[in-house]
Amino acid sequence: MEKIKVAVVGYGNIGAFAVEAVQAAPDMDLVGVVRRASSVGNSLPAGLANVKVVSDIDDLGKVDVAILCGPTRSIPEVAKKMVEKGICTVDSFDIHGDSLWELHEMLDEACKKNNVASVISAGWDPGSDSVIRTLLLAMAPKGLTYTNFGPGMSMGHSVVARSKEGVKNALSMTIPTGTGVHRRMVYVELEEGATLESVTAAIKADSYFSHDETHVMEVESVDALQDMGHGVLIERKGVSGKTQNQLFEFKMKINNPALTSQIMTACARAVVKQRPGCYAMPEIAPMDLIPGDKKTLIKTLI
Amino acid sequence: MEKIKVAVVGYGNIGAFAVEAVQAAPDMDLVGVVRRASSVGNSLPAGLANVKVVSDIDDLGKVDVAILCGPTRSIPEVAKKMVEKGICTVDSFDIHGDSLWELHEMLDEACKKNNVASVISAGWDPGSDSVIRTLLLAMAPKGLTYTNFGPGMSMGHSVVARSKEGVKNALSMTIPTGTGVHRRMVYVELEEGATLESVTAAIKADSYFSHDETHVMEVESVDALQDMGHGVLIERKGVSGKTQNQLFEFKMKINNPALTSQIMTACARAVVKQRPGCYAMPEIAPMDLIPGDKKTLIKTLI
Repeated sequence: MEKIKVAVVGYGNIGAFAVEAVQAAPDMDLVGVVRRASSVGNSLPAGLANVKVVSDIDDLGKVDVAILCGPTRSIPEVAKKMVEKGICTVDSFDIHGDSLWELHEMLDEACKKNNVASVISAGWDPGSDSVIRTLLLAMAPKGLTYTNFGPGMSMGHSVVARSKEGVKNALSMTIPTGTGVHRRMVYVELEEGATLESVTAAIKADSYFSHDETHVMEVESVDALQDMGHGVLIERKGVSGKTQNQLFEFKMKINNPALTSQIMTACARAVVKQRPGCYAMPEIAPMDLIPGDKKTLIKTLI
Repeated sequence: MEKIKVAVVGYGNIGAFAVEAVQAAPDMDLVGVVRRASSVGNSLPAGLANVKVVSDIDDLGKVDVAILCGPTRSIPEVAKKMVEKGICTVDSFDIHGDSLWELHEMLDEACKKNNVASVISAGWDPGSDSVIRTLLLAMAPKGLTYTNFGPGMSMGHSVVARSKEGVKNALSMTIPTGTGVHRRMVYVELEEGATLESVTAAIKADSYFSHDETHVMEVESVDALQDMGHGVLIERKGVSGKTQNQLFEFKMKINNPALTSQIMTACARAVVKQRPGCYAMPEIAPMDLIPGDKKTLIKTLI
C-alpha cells in the first residue's frame, strides 16, 4: 500500500514531536517540514537532519496531509489555504466553544469545495478527552462529567503572567483540586526593581486568573522548573437507562507535546479516509486512527 | 424529528434493562418486545406494563432497529433474519476473535444486500472497552495494554461450574490480580452426597478454569451472593512518537446488564446513521452514539 505523504507545518514544540511521530508511523512518509522563511537556511536543529525543510509547502511536491503545528490563532487562515491547495489538514486548535464551531463550519465548506477533509482540535483536550467525554455520555446519558487537568504547565497562562510589567519569566502550573476546579501556581522571575506584591496583584487581576485560586511565588530560575509532563482525570457518575451510580474514570500522565503530536499524526491517518468535510475527533471512527487491516484489528482488538 | 422505532428482542436480564434504556432515550420509541411464544400471554413482569409484547416481530409494524438480547450463540441466525426483513440490528455478541470476524463478514454482506446496517458486539467488553483500547493504541502506538476485569460475576464461568455433577448452584467471580491476570472465586451449593473435593476437581479440570488460579468454596446460598456490579481497569504504558512512559488508565464500576443495555441502546441510535454494512463499535464515530444536533455538541462537548 502506498504511504501517506505528510508535511509538518511549523517547528516549535509540537512540530518537533510531530516530526518524530510521523517518522515512527509505519504507513507514513514525512515529505518535509515547512518553516518560516527566516528560519530556513539557518543551522538545522538535530531533529531535522535528513528532513527536507522549506518555507513554502508547494516546494514539497505532492502532499496528502499537512499537520499544522503553528499557534492556534493562525489555524483558520493556514488551514483554509492548505485545503484550497487540495491538501487535507490536521490541527490542534484549542479554543473550545463558539470559535471551534466557526472553524468547523468554515473549513467544512472549504473542504467540500476542494474535495478534501480536515480534522480540527486534534490534541488531548480538545481531542482524545472529547472522545472520552462523548463515550461516557453514551454509556451514562444522565449525570455529571468533571475534567480535572494537571498537574502540568499551562502555556496560555504562562504567557499571560510573563506579559505583566516587572516579570522576566513566568511559569503557570495547573493544579486540579477536584470536580473540575483548578488552582494556579505561578512561579515568576522578577525584573530589577519590581516587587512581588505588584506583580501578584497584576496577575490576579487578569481574567485568565481572576476566576481561579491563584498563588504567585518568586523563584531564581523559571527554566529550572520546566517539565512537559501533564495529565488529566475525567470522572463521570451517571445513569445508564434507569440505573444510578455508574462510575467512570479516565486518567493519564503524559508528556504533553508528545501526546498532542501523536494524536495529530493518528488523525493524519484518519483524515485521508474521511469523506470531504471537516471533523472534530468524536466525529471520526476510532479505528480510522490506527494502521492495520480491518480483519486483523477486529480479531485482535475488539 | 421523527423518533427511532426500536424493538427489544428477548427479555432476560439484558432485555429488561434494554427496555428501560430505550424508554429513557428522548429520541426513541419502544415499539415493542419480542419474546418466545411460550412466554407471551403469561402474566407480564412489571417492567412490561404498557409495552406491546409479541412473539413475532412482524406483529410490531414498522421497526427501524432491533436490539437483540438473546444468548450470544443465537445472534448470527437471529441478526441475519432481522436484516433480511430490512431491520437494522444491534447485538452484544461476546466471543472475541475468529467468531466475531465471521459474524462481521456474514452480516456485512447481508446488510449491504438489504440496505441496512448492523452494530455487533456492542456491550462493554467487547464494546466500549474496544473503543478505549483502540484510542489508546492511537495515542501510544507502541506498548502494552492490560484489561483487568472485575471484581464481578462471570455468567459463562458460573454456567460451566453449575453444569458439574453434584453442583446445585454456582457463582464464579472474576477477581483481577493485575496485568490482565485473573483469579476465579467459585461459590457452590452442593447436592446431597456430593463432596467439595470431587466438585473442585471437576471445576478445576474444565478448560474454562484450568488456565487460571481457581478457588472453590461451599456456601449455603449462592443466591445470597448475587450482585450485578462489575468493573474493569484498562491500563496502557506506551510510546507516543519517540517519547516513552506515557501512562493511561480507564476504570469503571458499574451495574453490568444496565451498562450493556445502555450501550446497545446508544448503538441503536448510531446504527441508523451508518451506511449499509456491519460495524464493530470502534468503526463508528462516537458522536453518532448520542442525541442532539451537531452544532450544540461541538460547542459544548469538544
